[in-house]
Amino acid sequence: MQDALLALTKYWTDRGCIVVQPYNTEVGAGTLNPATVLRVLGPEPWRVSYVEPSVRPDDARYGENPNRLQTHTQFQVILKPDPGNPQELYLGSLEALGIDVRGHDVRFVEDNWASPALGAWGLGWEVWLDGLEITQFTYFQQAGGMSLDPVSVEITYGIERIMMALQGVDHFKDIAYAPGVSYGEAFGQSEYEMSRYYLDDADVEANKRLFEEYAAEARRMLDARLPVPAHNYVLKCSHAFNVLDARGAISTTERARAFGRMRALAREVAQLWAARREELGHPLGLAEVPAQAALPDVFPEVAEPAALLFEIGTEELPPAEVTRTVDAVRAAVADKLAATRLAHGAVEVHGTPRRVVVLVADVAPREPDAEKTARGPRVSAAFDADGNPTKAAQGFARGQGVAVEALGRVTENGVEHVAAVRTDPGRGAVEVLSGLLGEVVAELRAEKNMKWNDPKLSFTRPIRWLLALLGATPVPVAVSSLSAEPKTRVHRTADHPVVEVSTADGYLEFLAGHGIVASAADRRAAIVAEAERLAASVGGVVDLDGVLDEVTNLVERPTPILGSFEERYLELPAQILTTVMRKHQRYLPVRGEDGSLLPHFVAVANGDVDEDLVRAGNEAVLRARYEDAAFFWRADLRTPLEDMKSGLDKLTFADKLGSVADRAGRIAVLARRLAEVVGADDDALARAGELAKFDLGSQMVIELSSLAGVMAREYAERAGEAPEVARALFEMELPRSAGDALPGSTPGALLSLADRFDLLAGLFGIGANPTGSSDPFGLRRAALGAVSVLRAFPDLKDITLTRALSLAAQELEVSAEALEVAREFAVRRYEQQLLDAGHDHRFVNAVLPLADAPAVADATLAELTGLAGDPDFAALVAALQRVRRIVPADTVGEYDPRRLAEPAEVALHEALGEVPAGVTGLAAFAAAATVLTAPVNTFFDDVLVMAEDPDVRRARLGLLAAIRDLAAPVLDWQALGAALG
Amino acid sequence: MQDALLALTKYWTDRGCIVVQPYNTEVGAGTLNPATVLRVLGPEPWRVSYVEPSVRPDDARYGENPNRLQTHTQFQVILKPDPGNPQELYLGSLEALGIDVRGHDVRFVEDNWASPALGAWGLGWEVWLDGLEITQFTYFQQAGGMSLDPVSVEITYGIERIMMALQGVDHFKDIAYAPGVSYGEAFGQSEYEMSRYYLDDADVEANKRLFEEYAAEARRMLDARLPVPAHNYVLKCSHAFNVLDARGAISTTERARAFGRMRALAREVAQLWAARREELGHPLGLAEVPAQAALPDVFPEVAEPAALLFEIGTEELPPAEVTRTVDAVRAAVADKLAATRLAHGAVEVHGTPRRVVVLVADVAPREPDAEKTARGPRVSAAFDADGNPTKAAQGFARGQGVAVEALGRVTENGVEHVAAVRTDPGRGAVEVLSGLLGEVVAELRAEKNMKWNDPKLSFTRPIRWLLALLGATPVPVAVSSLSAEPKTRVHRTADHPVVEVSTADGYLEFLAGHGIVASAADRRAAIVAEAERLAASVGGVVDLDGVLDEVTNLVERPTPILGSFEERYLELPAQILTTVMRKHQRYLPVRGEDGSLLPHFVAVANGDVDEDLVRAGNEAVLRARYEDAAFFWRADLRTPLEDMKSGLDKLTFADKLGSVADRAGRIAVLARRLAEVVGADDDALARAGELAKFDLGSQMVIELSSLAGVMAREYAERAGEAPEVARALFEMELPRSAGDALPGSTPGALLSLADRFDLLAGLFGIGANPTGSSDPFGLRRAALGAVSVLRAFPDLKDITLTRALSLAAQELEVSAEALEVAREFAVRRYEQQLLDAGHDHRFVNAVLPLADAPAVADATLAELTGLAGDPDFAALVAALQRVRRIVPADTVGEYDPRRLAEPAEVALHEALGEVPAGVTGLAAFAAAATVLTAPVNTFFDDVLVMAEDPDVRRARLGLLAAIRDLAAPVLDWQALGAALG
Repeated sequence: MQDALLALTKYWTDRGCIVVQPYNTEVGAGTLNPATVLRVLGPEPWRVSYVEPSVRPDDARYGENPNRLQTHTQFQVILKPDPGNPQELYLGSLEALGIDVRGHDVRFVEDNWASPALGAWGLGWEVWLDGLEITQFTYFQQAGGMSLDPVSVEITYGIERIMMALQGVDHFKDIAYAPGVSYGEAFGQSEYEMSRYYLDDADVEANKRLFEEYAAEARRMLDARLPVPAHNYVLKCSHAFNVLDARGAISTTERARAFGRMRALAREVAQLWAARREELGHPLGLAEVPAQAALPDVFPEVAEPAALLFEIGTEELPPAEVTRTVDAVRAAVADKLAATRLAHGAVEVHGTPRRVVVLVADVAPREPDAEKTARGPRVSAAFDADGNPTKAAQGFARGQGVAVEALGRVTENGVEHVAAVRTDPGRGAVEVLSGLLGEVVAELRAEKNMKWNDPKLSFTRPIRWLLALLGATPVPVAVSSLSAEPKTRVHRTADHPVVEVSTADGYLEFLAGHGIVASAADRRAAIVAEAERLAASVGGVVDLDGVLDEVTNLVERPTPILGSFEERYLELPAQILTTVMRKHQRYLPVRGEDGSLLPHFVAVANGDVDEDLVRAGNEAVLRARYEDAAFFWRADLRTPLEDMKSGLDKLTFADKLGSVADRAGRIAVLARRLAEVVGADDDALARAGELAKFDLGSQMVIELSSLAGVMAREYAERAGEAPEVARALFEMELPRSAGDALPGSTPGALLSLADRFDLLAGLFGIGANPTGSSDPFGLRRAALGAVSVLRAFPDLKDITLTRALSLAAQELEVSAEALEVAREFAVRRYEQQLLDAGHDHRFVNAVLPLADAPAVADATLAELTGLAGDPDFAALVAALQRVRRIVPADTVGEYDPRRLAEPAEVALHEALGEVPAGVTGLAAFAAAATVLTAPVNTFFDDVLVMAEDPDVRRARLGLLAAIRDLAAPVLDWQALGAALG
Repeated sequence: MQDALLALTKYWTDRGCIVVQPYNTEVGAGTLNPATVLRVLGPEPWRVSYVEPSVRPDDARYGENPNRLQTHTQFQVILKPDPGNPQELYLGSLEALGIDVRGHDVRFVEDNWASPALGAWGLGWEVWLDGLEITQFTYFQQAGGMSLDPVSVEITYGIERIMMALQGVDHFKDIAYAPGVSYGEAFGQSEYEMSRYYLDDADVEANKRLFEEYAAEARRMLDARLPVPAHNYVLKCSHAFNVLDARGAISTTERARAFGRMRALAREVAQLWAARREELGHPLGLAEVPAQAALPDVFPEVAEPAALLFEIGTEELPPAEVTRTVDAVRAAVADKLAATRLAHGAVEVHGTPRRVVVLVADVAPREPDAEKTARGPRVSAAFDADGNPTKAAQGFARGQGVAVEALGRVTENGVEHVAAVRTDPGRGAVEVLSGLLGEVVAELRAEKNMKWNDPKLSFTRPIRWLLALLGATPVPVAVSSLSAEPKTRVHRTADHPVVEVSTADGYLEFLAGHGIVASAADRRAAIVAEAERLAASVGGVVDLDGVLDEVTNLVERPTPILGSFEERYLELPAQILTTVMRKHQRYLPVRGEDGSLLPHFVAVANGDVDEDLVRAGNEAVLRARYEDAAFFWRADLRTPLEDMKSGLDKLTFADKLGSVADRAGRIAVLARRLAEVVGADDDALARAGELAKFDLGSQMVIELSSLAGVMAREYAERAGEAPEVARALFEMELPRSAGDALPGSTPGALLSLADRFDLLAGLFGIGANPTGSSDPFGLRRAALGAVSVLRAFPDLKDITLTRALSLAAQELEVSAEALEVAREFAVRRYEQQLLDAGHDHRFVNAVLPLADAPAVADATLAELTGLAGDPDFAALVAALQRVRRIVPADTVGEYDPRRLAEPAEVALHEALGEVPAGVTGLAAFAAAATVLTAPVNTFFDDVLVMAEDPDVRRARLGLLAAIRDLAAPVLDWQALGAALG
């Protein structure tokens, strides 16, 4: 291992990195060493590499967990500015470590980094070696709340991980640290003892006092304008906090306050450092900025129509961005071409993680010329009496660059003017494309964009090359620092990673010849076909759920590889196994005919790897993960449910809303209140409420949070809880996403509702409303879930949104306004569900007033849809509309029948009497109320509502208002009237 | 610089060292990293190397001092066990750094290390590169109060030092840290800011609280039996303490308490670590112990007398031990030879730092045989009546292994016995020498001894080889793991550092041929001759004071080299310059005819170096030191004396005796009290007292403590103090050692006395009496100094030891017993001075009763010496002896003359009346009292003192007692009588 550290140090030193020492106070990551977190600020260049023993008290495991240490070894590299080829440099470092990057499957998998505490974020990847995350690779965009210019490339190697993989050992203690000395022999005692300190023995009050002392010193140093000692104390602060956290001694309010203080201090440190460096005149100089590319003065001409090839070469795009960018580029190219006069054939765009390929067939060699007529002065003003051109005409001709004799005539609005007709010559295709393609690149944007070494571009990941050919003719494209060249880049591990491209024709085949499948559809099909074949070879079928799209866009050439794991892991609940496969490893599970898991998986490597090597690597990763899971499983099974639950005390939920334990307690109370509303309280619900969310305290869920609920059921069953309790605990987490299963039992439904209404009431109550795309607490999902459950349980219709939220609010401090906002938010989600399901928006609008009880609204909507073609119903609606239009809103639905004299009004009064009060449901109402249609219409035909006699007038309005009020609870007749009318 | 660190790491890794990271909390030295201070404990092997940024708040200088940093970079190596050739390995590492160890002068200069706070010590060297200390090299003997077995070799490189030398730069900021990045550019801001924190801005109260928190956590971790986190907190404690110290915030009592706590904690940590490792079964195994060497069964024989060569090869001995060892070996060899029957010629022993060479001329090939007679039974019992041998005779003969017929006769005390005469055959010379020489080695001891990898030997430095030849015959010698071989080791940088030796003859010439001068006298003479020549070449004379003996024993072949420094440094006081030259660099100053310094020096390199290179190196070192001194000089001159003095508050003097400031205050008070005794108080003394020891607060004296007093005078003069004040301040530090100058002025003498009596009263008062060779506070020197001053100032004779000590005690809590012990201690020193000066010990004894006033005793002794041959005086002494013998001690010297009747007694009474009372001085008394001689003798001849009449008897005894009392104050007549009698 020490040789590896030396090899890395040597490698990066040879590439211009300064070497510094680990920081001499505890840091949680190499990023926190001032050699990173301060040096990335400001305009000075900085290249550094160093080892950083990173102390994470929370990861302390007494040295027992094979992969987790309280102090693990990071190797950290900062390249500032981005050298333009950091991935290639990084791969070189792996080779320096003795890793065969051709045989192994090395991939850059989207992983973005953000530390709100540092006001810092960056975009990048985790680097996978045969499925094992070995490095974090980040383009550092912001630190201390300041945008970084230039940005730094941060490369953080997890050394123990890499060593375990290289040495093929299963426990960090077995790493050969030095010749004859294992990691465990050298550091095992320290690992154990420091774990003891962090987990069991650290004095809580002492560390709290230390935290305060450190924070105060940091504050004082900032005031003294000394960022270096200030940073030092911020780090000490942070470590003290981490110790307290590992000891489980941080209450919610303390956590919030501590984070706030550290964040504020860290930002001030960063800003002060930047300011001080500026005052010192930037001792290390200023980083160089790549020069802007330039276009030639003259563009080549082509003679014949030809195919256009345009390739935008990038570093690994996030999978979702591959699809999005292909679409965006297709639209941009098509639109921009349409804005020219250049004739062309079909536009075809493909994408892989590293390239977007645009192919346009039959591009004409030039734009046709166009005539352009310029209107001059009136003929009457253009010639004098002698017919000679006036000065005005002469001036116009001169201005247009034509001889005065050549001026023609044009009539506009009946007035004749002189006119100059000029030919607007068509541009050559190369010139047209040059500008157009440059714009396409410059305008590329993703959901989240970043900067790299280019002074002007901004995209989801760096754009590194451009290739543009019209047939065989290079098209000059210049965008910021990039120039198109007739070259492309193939697999980085190819013998010649950069290859010349002589023609646009057959480019997809050309790429295929270099092992690159440009078409996502082709890649996907290839994965499916091969994965099915591999699964069949072990008598199974591949389970394509979940990760296929992602996998398709993680590779340029998919190489599915069948791997296996030990059967004994099948004893674990299947969802654990599939969660690990999909979520962590992007593997496709393999199932038997009966749907049960087989001990196999399909991993999809990139390119032409050594399959045995990659298989072995992936299997080892999965084994380690399953071993971890089995460890948690066994540990959890030994832990009483109440003990797990007690762990929730130290899990923060949100500022002002207490811990997760507090929240679980509220959910239990709320679930029973909701049950009381519908008379459904029972023992199962009570018990499930007591245990609510206990599995969040299990080691398994702490590791694999997506298994919340699943594990609750598993553990509850095994702990001897009643089946309905276990089921309710599982179901309370449903639905976990749109389209997920819903609770099937009433206790499960009530807990699910309680969970979601507590979330909504609580977070709207503290003003944490979702905004734009930001919804950190998943309130949209919660509202959709609550509505879905209410819709699925019509029996619970008395649990209205209003009622549920107000019951939830009893345990919280929530204003009436906030509750109304929450309710409205839930209604909007319901509306959206209905619209997404294809319901007529007018009908949807009509039932929305009933949305407080979505099941009722659903039923109404269904009836409404059934009645939609019924002429009697249409007539009823129209009649009710007439009533509603004429009655002032404040009119009370009461009248004195004795004032009614006209037959039409008496008839209506009597008809009204025939309609039973309290009819619920639209269909029933419509059937009952249809007797009103004719009398209403007759009434309006025969009677003047606005009689002169006020008593009569009042009686007539009262009669109509009574009809209105009778109909009102059923649906929004006005909206419906508009819809049908 | 980073390349250097990598090169060292690579070098030591290739030699089996594990690499660890710097410790992640602040440490003051690499030693404190647990990879050293804990790993050296116990029996496990451990080889490690690492970089350690060492934080020393006290060394913070805002980055302004060219050589001093608050964080400097150590490179630390631990070799456990000692591999047997660590020096050679070390030299290899210098070559790996690109240092030409042949051209440069690399030397191992005695430097022992001890950290009472860690309960740790070791013996070793500082390694010099052309006079620059670049490495600390230590055989670690004890840590945590535990003896180390095996011992570890600790090598600590000072990287900035080495880099400055290699790169030839004058300021650490100018070190090229990495290509294109200087040390200052990379770390300058941090150096400045952390200096600000440590010196100016650290919050004192906060750091005091941190200290307490850390100490408490360390305590708790010890109680939890977790030595690793405990050590971590001891380090944090230590750093907090260092911060407080740098801020000048540690009071004396706090310091004492803090050190005590840290020491106790560190020891417990060490013991707990060792215990825990044992409990863990010593995970790294047990270190191997070299095998014991064995002697052959048969020793070779030699035929002719031959010369013996025996060489004990060592690592660099301390210079004083070279001489001591040569003497000890000479005595041991001679004594042991004398105990054999082996004839031999002269024994000659020489020594260098690396070898002791024993040459014995003309060793006989064998011991002669010897006859051995055993006495048997009496003849009368040996033969029966028939003359046949009895059983007794037969048994005796059998026991002696002779035939009964061969028994002879021997007469003893007139009785005839039978006797067996056996021949004791002489052993061969090789056999005799083999045993004898082995004993010499095994019994070698120095003042301070250590262990290395040898399982049994113990000496001042490791013994690495033995060479023993009798003529050309190898003498087998086996001592513990060492075997003699016919090889020696010459300069380590020779082409063949190990050479065969074929014969004892001409060995000194043989060594000379390899550039080694075995004789210290020859080396000394060579140094003197060449140094004189070099000095003469620049018109000067070499100043041989002080370091010549040391230099002679620092080299195996002296190569004096003339160096120069810039004349501008001559503006500094000469004592600064010579102190730096001698004390720090072991250079010989060069003076002009008038005794003033010239800007030159002579350095004495070892062996055949590149003189230009070595000269340049030494000049650079001296320049840096003078630059430092000039920096201090200028800084001090800008500082008011009172400000310097105020710095004494934070210098501890000793536990229970307050700070140095407290002590200076006591000295001032005591000096004036002493002055009052002799009526010598004046303004100069008062002012000098106010300023007493102020220069201990000057930067110069903090750096060069031997300049205390010298700098006081310089700074006082320049600050405008009166000349007599400046002089007194200088003189109060006199005498600094035996033979040093004494004060010349009365204020100076009084301050000198006050200084020393305060020290004596204070330290005896707290029981810090010197024991054996341990005298950490220099009480012997203080007592000798006080006595010397008193002897030099007869005018101050009223300041007796008793009076001075009791006045000193007024400011202290000292028991009467302790004061008496102190007084007696001073008297013994006086006695020793007199004896050392060659005075007759009987005369010395005679005047010792007067030693309370040494000047008085001196005068008496001088007179006594003058009178020694005078017969009248001898008669007087004899007469007084007679008087003293007969008078009981309790007899009062009063009598009634009227009771005296006998003529002899009346005559004596009258003679007594002629001797004037109160004669002081022995000579005057002798002259006056000589009239008593004859009457005393007559009195004893004629008068019976013990008359029967009690009144008469009383009168006679009273008369004699009066004579006795008259003589008593003059000297110890009894002692003198014994002397002359």
